[in-house]
Amino acid sequence: MDEERTGAWWGRRAWALLSAVRERSPLVQCITNLVSMDIAANALTAAGASPAMLHCLREIPDFTPRCHAVYINVGTLSEDWLPSMRAAASAGRPWVLDPVAAAASGFRMEACLELLALRPAVVRGNASEILALATRSDSSTSFKGVDSSHDSGEALQAAKALARSSGAVIAVSGAVDFITDGEQVLSASNGVAMMQKITATGCAVTALIAAFIGADPSDALAAAACALAIFGLAGEIGMESAKGPASLRMHLIDALYGLDEQTVTSGVKIALLP
Amino acid sequence: MDEERTGAWWGRRAWALLSAVRERSPLVQCITNLVSMDIAANALTAAGASPAMLHCLREIPDFTPRCHAVYINVGTLSEDWLPSMRAAASAGRPWVLDPVAAAASGFRMEACLELLALRPAVVRGNASEILALATRSDSSTSFKGVDSSHDSGEALQAAKALARSSGAVIAVSGAVDFITDGEQVLSASNGVAMMQKITATGCAVTALIAAFIGADPSDALAAAACALAIFGLAGEIGMESAKGPASLRMHLIDALYGLDEQTVTSGVKIALLP
Amino acid sequence: MDEERTGAWWGRRAWALLSAVRERSPLVQCITNLVSMDIAANALTAAGASPAMLHCLREIPDFTPRCHAVYINVGTLSEDWLPSMRAAASAGRPWVLDPVAAAASGFRMEACLELLALRPAVVRGNASEILALATRSDSSTSFKGVDSSHDSGEALQAAKALARSSGAVIAVSGAVDFITDGEQVLSASNGVAMMQKITATGCAVTALIAAFIGADPSDALAAAACALAIFGLAGEIGMESAKGPASLRMHLIDALYGLDEQTVTSGVKIALLP
Repeated sequence: MDEERTGAWWGRRAWALLSAVRERSPLVQCITNLVSMDIAANALTAAGASPAMLHCLREIPDFTPRCHAVYINVGTLSEDWLPSMRAAASAGRPWVLDPVAAAASGFRMEACLELLALRPAVVRGNASEILALATRSDSSTSFKGVDSSHDSGEALQAAKALARSSGAVIAVSGAVDFITDGEQVLSASNGVAMMQKITATGCAVTALIAAFIGADPSDALAAAACALAIFGLAGEIGMESAKGPASLRMHLIDALYGLDEQTVTSGVKIALLP
Repeated sequence: MDEERTGAWWGRRAWALLSAVRERSPLVQCITNLVSMDIAANALTAAGASPAMLHCLREIPDFTPRCHAVYINVGTLSEDWLPSMRAAASAGRPWVLDPVAAAASGFRMEACLELLALRPAVVRGNASEILALATRSDSSTSFKGVDSSHDSGEALQAAKALARSSGAVIAVSGAVDFITDGEQVLSASNGVAMMQKITATGCAVTALIAAFIGADPSDALAAAACALAIFGLAGEIGMESAKGPASLRMHLIDALYGLDEQTVTSGVKIALLP
Repeated sequence: MDEERTGAWWGRRAWALLSAVRERSPLVQCITNLVSMDIAANALTAAGASPAMLHCLREIPDFTPRCHAVYINVGTLSEDWLPSMRAAASAGRPWVLDPVAAAASGFRMEACLELLALRPAVVRGNASEILALATRSDSSTSFKGVDSSHDSGEALQAAKALARSSGAVIAVSGAVDFITDGEQVLSASNGVAMMQKITATGCAVTALIAAFIGADPSDALAAAACALAIFGLAGEIGMESAKGPASLRMHLIDALYGLDEQTVTSGVKIALLP
């Protein structure tokens, strides 16, 4: 990554990727948790992608190869959905993993590690989830549910190690998001705190990462950083009209739909860490 | 259908049907996809119907006969839900089928055709779905996901043929909706383009068709046309206040709840094709 | 309960409980219906709790003991989820039951009675649901779906009897809510009629009861009454800006998030019936 990759360069890159999503309307198969389906599908549609919530094992051989990307989220994991997750992750399409509450149980941690071995292009989680994955630990006494009990910066070294061991780009969400391929580290600093008060915003932005990769699979690191920044930027714009988390959710989706070149190129805050 | 069925006649018919839904509050069993449950249930409730999302096979013998109509949607089809769909479709109540993404897989196409043989009163799909069903084809290389890649007019002849072969009223959604029993063809021209950017509006309007049939099962052709026109009209009114797809969704449901006689009778755009 | 428990006392009690939820952020495992997940999770988050929609039987031994409370709702009951409901209800955490449409089928009534024997702290239902549970009847010819066909007052004696036989606090929702431990009866009179036109508000408020009990398990009667009053109060505030059920839903969640001490202490309407 050369010196020319300034903030302005990233603004143009983010706009180019969002434009690619709008033009190509990538078909994104989502095997995601039951809570996030509504917001994830609507965020994908607002961004210009074509979501398909399809989890039936028997459909995967016919369907998944037609998709541009696959999104897998273990939030409401169950034994009967796990084979579909494995099959979709193994279908040869670029795919993205959201290891929601990875430390919630031994069964869940085992499932996440098994999926991680199927070579996702990107894993996006909060700091607690990435720390748990990196240490393969489901016994953390600090487990507090689906929200993170750590800052994203605390998970940065774990993220780099996990990226190197897994071959995936690792994105750690937080007040500042960190995205790493094990060597380079990008930061993305868009977003507002109240987004944490909307259920499944993390799930929705991981779906958006899949859409960006579906539209342009050439650089998963850039796709993840740009999707995170653009979703956060939509949250910033939404916050201008919001009176609480429910109106923020609505305004965020509206803003994502309406983003224009000027807003994206000037608003995206991505930087390469030294 | 006689010459007196002018636009104004249809406006009065649509209002009579919506009034019947509000007065009788038909109980509509929905076995629908996981993404659409929220919007479908809220649309039904806003229109005055009583939705019941109930998919357990063991409950169907007790529950389904008490319902006024049944709504079946294959969007997130799975092997364990298909027996419930079959049982509910066979329970002797008028029922409506939404063949979401019928061509997504051989398994799904087979399921749709099997359900179609159980004599739905109405099938509502987009042009791609109706074309796929009519040609029993799941191998279309043009398959692009849950959104249509065809205009509704392209599917009109296929819809007529499918109506004749299945005995169901076939409704093809699009910028103009076409509704046919195989002989007569109605057009319904309400709605706005941005409704396509809200996930599961198609699922929600199919649920509304079931509610209209539940309130008055005497004329499935009219019920389907009026439900499509009224949902589109609510979208038109919602669009006046919307700033994007998420606010449109909210305003559409609010508008559906608030529709009055004057608005419906003057706003519904239904016509009999010559 | 002594004479000092005036309306103002209850206002302070409700504020103390909401503050406890915000401070302790209780982890609430929800095994709830597929329609209500979005609104229940967002209501819990807006109130300050930490929802975890997790229903996998294999995860319950690891996960449920870490939770502060459990919420179980049979709205979209299925045979494969029932063992998880049993296990979570038996894990030693305080838990709350929502017997949605208890009379919908013999299977559902049997499941509800079986869960009731596992000693929930609170059962919240509408009058029809509580009457059905109390009489163990699933054959009511008046069954009309998930909405109540009785006033809450009609179920008061049944609620007292059910509380005594089950050991649970029974809350009957309606224009006025009644909450009883079999001896004392509280009324909670907040809320607006249009809340009935939003799908799953009942499910959401039962989830909120679980959060209140998770934050302070010492008095389930008070927790249930205060959660019902606070949710209703948020509805009253939301109604000031609402134009229909969809905007009411948004404004209600925003209001729940923004409630302050003055609003709660002066707005909550709870009374001990003589």
